[in-house]
Amino acid sequence: MTAALTRSEHDLLGDRDVPADAYWGVHTLRATENFPITGTPISAYPHLIDALAAVKEAAALANEELGLLEPEKARAIVAACQEIRAGKLHDQFVVDVIQGGAGTSTNMNANEVVANRALEMLGHAKGEYTRLHPNEHVNLGQSTNDVYPTAVKVATVFAVRGLLKAMAVLQDAFARKAVEFREVLKMGRTQLQDAVPMTLGQEFSAYAVMIEEDRSRLAEAVELIHEINLGATAIGTGLNAPAGYAEAARRHLSAITGLPLVTAANLVEATQDCGAFVQMSGVLKRIAVKLSKSCNDLRLLSSGPRAGLGEINLPPVQAGSSIMPGKVNPVIPEVVNQVAFEVIGNDVAITMAAEAGQLQLNAFEPIILHSLSESITHLRSACLTLAERCVNGITANTERLRATVENSIGLVTALNPHIGYTAATDIAKEALVTGRGVAELVLEKGLLPAERLAELLRPEVVAGSGAPAA
Amino acid sequence: MTAALTRSEHDLLGDRDVPADAYWGVHTLRATENFPITGTPISAYPHLIDALAAVKEAAALANEELGLLEPEKARAIVAACQEIRAGKLHDQFVVDVIQGGAGTSTNMNANEVVANRALEMLGHAKGEYTRLHPNEHVNLGQSTNDVYPTAVKVATVFAVRGLLKAMAVLQDAFARKAVEFREVLKMGRTQLQDAVPMTLGQEFSAYAVMIEEDRSRLAEAVELIHEINLGATAIGTGLNAPAGYAEAARRHLSAITGLPLVTAANLVEATQDCGAFVQMSGVLKRIAVKLSKSCNDLRLLSSGPRAGLGEINLPPVQAGSSIMPGKVNPVIPEVVNQVAFEVIGNDVAITMAAEAGQLQLNAFEPIILHSLSESITHLRSACLTLAERCVNGITANTERLRATVENSIGLVTALNPHIGYTAATDIAKEALVTGRGVAELVLEKGLLPAERLAELLRPEVVAGSGAPAA
Amino acid sequence: MTAALTRSEHDLLGDRDVPADAYWGVHTLRATENFPITGTPISAYPHLIDALAAVKEAAALANEELGLLEPEKARAIVAACQEIRAGKLHDQFVVDVIQGGAGTSTNMNANEVVANRALEMLGHAKGEYTRLHPNEHVNLGQSTNDVYPTAVKVATVFAVRGLLKAMAVLQDAFARKAVEFREVLKMGRTQLQDAVPMTLGQEFSAYAVMIEEDRSRLAEAVELIHEINLGATAIGTGLNAPAGYAEAARRHLSAITGLPLVTAANLVEATQDCGAFVQMSGVLKRIAVKLSKSCNDLRLLSSGPRAGLGEINLPPVQAGSSIMPGKVNPVIPEVVNQVAFEVIGNDVAITMAAEAGQLQLNAFEPIILHSLSESITHLRSACLTLAERCVNGITANTERLRATVENSIGLVTALNPHIGYTAATDIAKEALVTGRGVAELVLEKGLLPAERLAELLRPEVVAGSGAPAA
Amino acid sequence: MTAALTRSEHDLLGDRDVPADAYWGVHTLRATENFPITGTPISAYPHLIDALAAVKEAAALANEELGLLEPEKARAIVAACQEIRAGKLHDQFVVDVIQGGAGTSTNMNANEVVANRALEMLGHAKGEYTRLHPNEHVNLGQSTNDVYPTAVKVATVFAVRGLLKAMAVLQDAFARKAVEFREVLKMGRTQLQDAVPMTLGQEFSAYAVMIEEDRSRLAEAVELIHEINLGATAIGTGLNAPAGYAEAARRHLSAITGLPLVTAANLVEATQDCGAFVQMSGVLKRIAVKLSKSCNDLRLLSSGPRAGLGEINLPPVQAGSSIMPGKVNPVIPEVVNQVAFEVIGNDVAITMAAEAGQLQLNAFEPIILHSLSESITHLRSACLTLAERCVNGITANTERLRATVENSIGLVTALNPHIGYTAATDIAKEALVTGRGVAELVLEKGLLPAERLAELLRPEVVAGSGAPAA
Repeated sequence: MTAALTRSEHDLLGDRDVPADAYWGVHTLRATENFPITGTPISAYPHLIDALAAVKEAAALANEELGLLEPEKARAIVAACQEIRAGKLHDQFVVDVIQGGAGTSTNMNANEVVANRALEMLGHAKGEYTRLHPNEHVNLGQSTNDVYPTAVKVATVFAVRGLLKAMAVLQDAFARKAVEFREVLKMGRTQLQDAVPMTLGQEFSAYAVMIEEDRSRLAEAVELIHEINLGATAIGTGLNAPAGYAEAARRHLSAITGLPLVTAANLVEATQDCGAFVQMSGVLKRIAVKLSKSCNDLRLLSSGPRAGLGEINLPPVQAGSSIMPGKVNPVIPEVVNQVAFEVIGNDVAITMAAEAGQLQLNAFEPIILHSLSESITHLRSACLTLAERCVNGITANTERLRATVENSIGLVTALNPHIGYTAATDIAKEALVTGRGVAELVLEKGLLPAERLAELLRPEVVAGSGAPAA
Repeated sequence: MTAALTRSEHDLLGDRDVPADAYWGVHTLRATENFPITGTPISAYPHLIDALAAVKEAAALANEELGLLEPEKARAIVAACQEIRAGKLHDQFVVDVIQGGAGTSTNMNANEVVANRALEMLGHAKGEYTRLHPNEHVNLGQSTNDVYPTAVKVATVFAVRGLLKAMAVLQDAFARKAVEFREVLKMGRTQLQDAVPMTLGQEFSAYAVMIEEDRSRLAEAVELIHEINLGATAIGTGLNAPAGYAEAARRHLSAITGLPLVTAANLVEATQDCGAFVQMSGVLKRIAVKLSKSCNDLRLLSSGPRAGLGEINLPPVQAGSSIMPGKVNPVIPEVVNQVAFEVIGNDVAITMAAEAGQLQLNAFEPIILHSLSESITHLRSACLTLAERCVNGITANTERLRATVENSIGLVTALNPHIGYTAATDIAKEALVTGRGVAELVLEKGLLPAERLAELLRPEVVAGSGAPAA
Repeated sequence: MTAALTRSEHDLLGDRDVPADAYWGVHTLRATENFPITGTPISAYPHLIDALAAVKEAAALANEELGLLEPEKARAIVAACQEIRAGKLHDQFVVDVIQGGAGTSTNMNANEVVANRALEMLGHAKGEYTRLHPNEHVNLGQSTNDVYPTAVKVATVFAVRGLLKAMAVLQDAFARKAVEFREVLKMGRTQLQDAVPMTLGQEFSAYAVMIEEDRSRLAEAVELIHEINLGATAIGTGLNAPAGYAEAARRHLSAITGLPLVTAANLVEATQDCGAFVQMSGVLKRIAVKLSKSCNDLRLLSSGPRAGLGEINLPPVQAGSSIMPGKVNPVIPEVVNQVAFEVIGNDVAITMAAEAGQLQLNAFEPIILHSLSESITHLRSACLTLAERCVNGITANTERLRATVENSIGLVTALNPHIGYTAATDIAKEALVTGRGVAELVLEKGLLPAERLAELLRPEVVAGSGAPAA
Repeated sequence: MTAALTRSEHDLLGDRDVPADAYWGVHTLRATENFPITGTPISAYPHLIDALAAVKEAAALANEELGLLEPEKARAIVAACQEIRAGKLHDQFVVDVIQGGAGTSTNMNANEVVANRALEMLGHAKGEYTRLHPNEHVNLGQSTNDVYPTAVKVATVFAVRGLLKAMAVLQDAFARKAVEFREVLKMGRTQLQDAVPMTLGQEFSAYAVMIEEDRSRLAEAVELIHEINLGATAIGTGLNAPAGYAEAARRHLSAITGLPLVTAANLVEATQDCGAFVQMSGVLKRIAVKLSKSCNDLRLLSSGPRAGLGEINLPPVQAGSSIMPGKVNPVIPEVVNQVAFEVIGNDVAITMAAEAGQLQLNAFEPIILHSLSESITHLRSACLTLAERCVNGITANTERLRATVENSIGLVTALNPHIGYTAATDIAKEALVTGRGVAELVLEKGLLPAERLAELLRPEVVAGSGAPAA
């Protein structure tokens, strides 16, 4: 006699067979049939799975504490959730990441997996829901409408932490180069036209500071994500959640995750509002804009080797072209640019999804989760890749850079206070017409002695107030 | 003998005649010829004109203090700037709001108007720049690259203050209705499907809270706008701005504007970075998303009068249709929706402009100014219009709302703890098939006495934890 | 003695070990290390893999024809490509879909897999590139800059064909409902306010026509995708591609794919231009907008069951809520909405990538491919799901719909020509105040006999010129 | 005795005084009070005012033809409309361009102005609507829901014609430069890295071809705008528009405008659908993307004068900087970039507005009109400005360009077939290490005689198949 290959489960639409060894059940089965959209299951977002398990665990502890759930059942649910948070059973989270139903299928997938694993731990067979029920016990006192956004927020906090660390790595990489290049004199440019001298160190310092500021903004935005609506149940009125449940669940979830979570003051508002996600995406977009701008600069400064600016060299990481021997391309900044474009596009998708919420709920949080997760994790990869495979290996063409300063007409601006504006203008005109250097002309005309001129062009003099901290 | 109609002015491209009575000069003339794009002059943004004058005034005071500018010239410049800030001469700011050159034409327009008005005050003719020069004296120690972003920031702070006030007006309007409707029972909806009961007061309270939160976010974002780069000159190295200038200019500008401005720690970074504008626009987008969602709800709740939800009535403010007698449309929410779409589109334009910055400068700040100003001022108008011409006059169809609750199947959810889940399910099924009411069936079956049932359906009972503060 | 686990390969950066059984080589290895971004390999886009193989096959045939490639080598390359196009070796296409280098890594991945499979067929070991070389032979006369965009276009054509078919399925579903509901009278609405009567058939007919028009636009846009730049080599000058190569390669590629491909008239322009992709994405966005609008309508019309419009019923496909018994949600339209938001966001990403091209090449085509493929395949799934799991099962609440018409004030508009505008206005006013029906009042006042009134309200009379073809 | 300053008018909300000399009336008055949003009246879009007048004129002629309107009234309406189309009374179109009500206020503004001017012509006082009524006669057989979109379409067609002409001017400017520079040899670049030689003529030819293709796409998109829904009345059922009216109105409107207009086959669909506007905006976005890319290139190629690429010179059109003497910036390409960003942002606004349509109408067409008009007219200005103030005056630094080719390593690719790949690779390596030129090394090693080398580097040889037509 062989084991059955399937078990039968029931929901309001009728009976369906699910694989006997599946921890998920009939609700998950229907969802996989209903949403064959991206082919990407929610298990692709491990932070979300862990967060769902944490919420279920917190709810079970709160329910037990309030005397609503038998201790034995609570212990089994908690044990199942802890397994999931330890990385097990993630392959049982199979519903498509883009789904209708405001996340109900994700919540039901979690309820079913937790219930069936808990049943096993209690010595029962999978599917024996009379013993422990996905809805009645695992989902007790909960609604998708508070569980799902809470889990998305917890998952987002952890994902953002990873991004913050990666940004710090990139900031450090730029900052180290800022120190390394602090005496490398070069021409600054505005509107792509030669402007006045600066140091390459100042240029890289600016990239480091940009990231530092963005990290501060991101840290502020993630604070807003700590406000949850657990206990709101269906629409924020907390219907059928007993007094004390919301507070107990929040307390347990904070303890489990180590996060200083707070319950929203107005749960009706919190249940329908996606403002914190829009804000988060807006900050990710800001980060993307800066990263893209910095990568545009790196590609521009390393253009050449002969017919470009040729100011810096990016480390070669792969051959550039099969048809052009020896060509090496700025492939790392290029991939970062593309991640930035994706993040900016995702922000529009998130904006539209948030705007489309109606009355007491936003049914479109799954695409918000999807787009937000993608933006965060891709930005993290992009920052690490940019730091490790590009910035760390950048070298400067110091001689060429110095030559552009010495050869520059803009240099004359720095001499204004010393040779006078009229003489400076005459020098500039002659330089432009003859193609000769400003320094050369100044020396030739005896306007300044050679030592004085060299002194005036020292990096620390020219670079002035914008210099990076020594 | 008649007065000359024009005067001749000179720049590096040669001589040009400008109208004799114009306060602007040759640089402004060329800019108006070069940028015939929108037809909207910068005078359309009075906050910007005032801010430019404030920056010029602060710079003159700083230069005088440092002994770089003769007191007589400084006094004349200051007097001219004060006239402008009092609302005069705004019609002399004629360059197109969308312009190339990173704002140079706007800065030169300001330099020329201030110089010519100051010349008049000193008893000279307009155009006698040997006495007081737009570049040499009005623009002393400055560059477009620090003046323009500083002025845009000051202007934005004042514009945002107007928006914050308008949002408070709208928040109050919603909050008053939340109190007025606090006992009006209705069905809450998720995914447009009947869910569980709530009060109309809770619904309006959520709108008020959304705006309150958005005001907090906007107040935070505007803080970032107080960081300026005045003193950075061309690229942030402060070349040709003497020691002490940046600090003196900031101090005077703070005093003139009453704003707690701070100078950026890294001026090279600050001169090229548009992050604060991207962040600001992101928050405006967030506000737009919420406003649009709220207006979608208002239009939905007031749909009808017969074949719609018909829960609330918006005050009629104009006839709706020439062909359909008596039709009144939700025109105020509709115009707010459209402003929201515009703001969201502007955010994309600002994002692209910020991303397109190169090396030491972002040349595209004019479109950032334009889009940001438009978003802020249109949102302000939208909030005031929505409060005054719509929300304040909203009335509730209390009887109809109560009937939908009494007639609702979702009502049974609230009775779960009192009649048991099984009985509740039976009631639900019978209600759906027969079209009868849950309360009616509960009474008929004798499951609860009439008084007890009425008690359980009282608003304060059903609305539960999400209720607005009494 | 055991087989070696790795083989050593060489490129300009040095030697690296690759797994002995891998068909890909050192270039692919470096790319996988350089681009750890999305975790999604290019094999996730089978149309792209097939198209790459088709291009390699066409190039080999053209090179053989021109005497540039030995027939034996050509035959092996062709055989390897045919295997790939038959679905084999797709798992060897492992580079990340978002990558720097303008697609070079994708092209090199293809060159290496084809070369190694061809080597095996020729009886050599994988990696014996002196016999048949990925660059020298498989990539002969080609550059990533013509191969990659050509392959993306061929892949897009096939993907779009799938979408066109899915749209036809959805159009048919709506059209069938239009016929089914052709006599179901209902109130039309403008601005969510009751307007004048129409039939539910007309409403569904509009959805069908929208899709039909969008199919026409998509068919037009895909025509533009048939223009390729194969033979352009590095920058469009065709350097090192002999006379006749471009034409021969195009001819073979057309034959292999069955597509009427044409070579661009100006290959320099064609190599840097992404206009056809932007246009395609714009049309996909248009489709997304319409689909989303239709789904918004479906969700609105099916709102209820008691407190909503309740005009139609969507077939239940899964349970809606664990906390609210019997609740069924419009999950299929909701998932389609979300795909639409994603497509609209992708359009922004594609737009930014296209705008970021510089000089003779757009380095950002990989994100264009990624976003475009995602939009096309998700839209396809969304259309099929919407047709099969929602539209096909929609039913109408005919009685309720008729009642809203009979109860409607807007109905009076249709009686204008028959009872006069003044009488109609009086009826409208009385109906609004008393809550009574227009027909009832007309009969009561004896303005029209009952039979005449019934006649005037027949669907075919009221629906007028906008009726669907019988 | 003096003339009254106001006259009293009546609508369903009551009586209001309007200025006695105003051609607009009470509906317009209320709209100006209800929508104080942008401050921009619809008169800012003269194409729209002309189109509204054309629609009113066509409707009057159709109504007269069908015997529904007395000839005297029809003649007066026609005469008033013709005055408006001749440019008169535009200042009477005062409602805000962003308005709620789906354009009703714009339509009523037109009805009132036409009626009052017609009344004057008939010898009556303004406001004597019993003689000729804005709704009853001017708007006879019409609804805002067919009048407004029809007028927007007619206006858009004329605006697009202006853009098409401006694009042709720009195309010609680029094409002339392509001829002028057809023998100027330079290095082509991919990914900003030196690639292989081409001519500057080929580079400019690509810009011309891009615009040519975009003109074709725009011409196709504007075809779709010729399909109108005049005769649909409120929701597309044509209620109260007699048989023959739609066809007669279309025929007259075609004659008046000279446009081959067609009536949509399904008027219910046509009345709610904004697809043609989304498509149009998508094509405008495509144009913006290309223009921006071309301007990015122009700014890059003209970077310098010393520390940049310095390949071409843009004509100076204004001084660049007050602080840096002699600096000239690429202000014209910069302003075009900003218009492009605006157009791309507008596309998002239009997309959201189109998606937000509900059931039988899109209430958000006013923002679509506004954004579309802005995009079209700003693009037109941008194209003309770019042609006249930039492209026409571009010069090439021929010697510098030739030097970069002679100094280039990429040059060796062109010599591959002549000196062999192995020798070419050796030359490339030596050039990179020593900094010497490829040609110099080839000559030194005696690999090719000087005459042969010079021959191989002739533009027509190197440029190959991508050359512009002679």
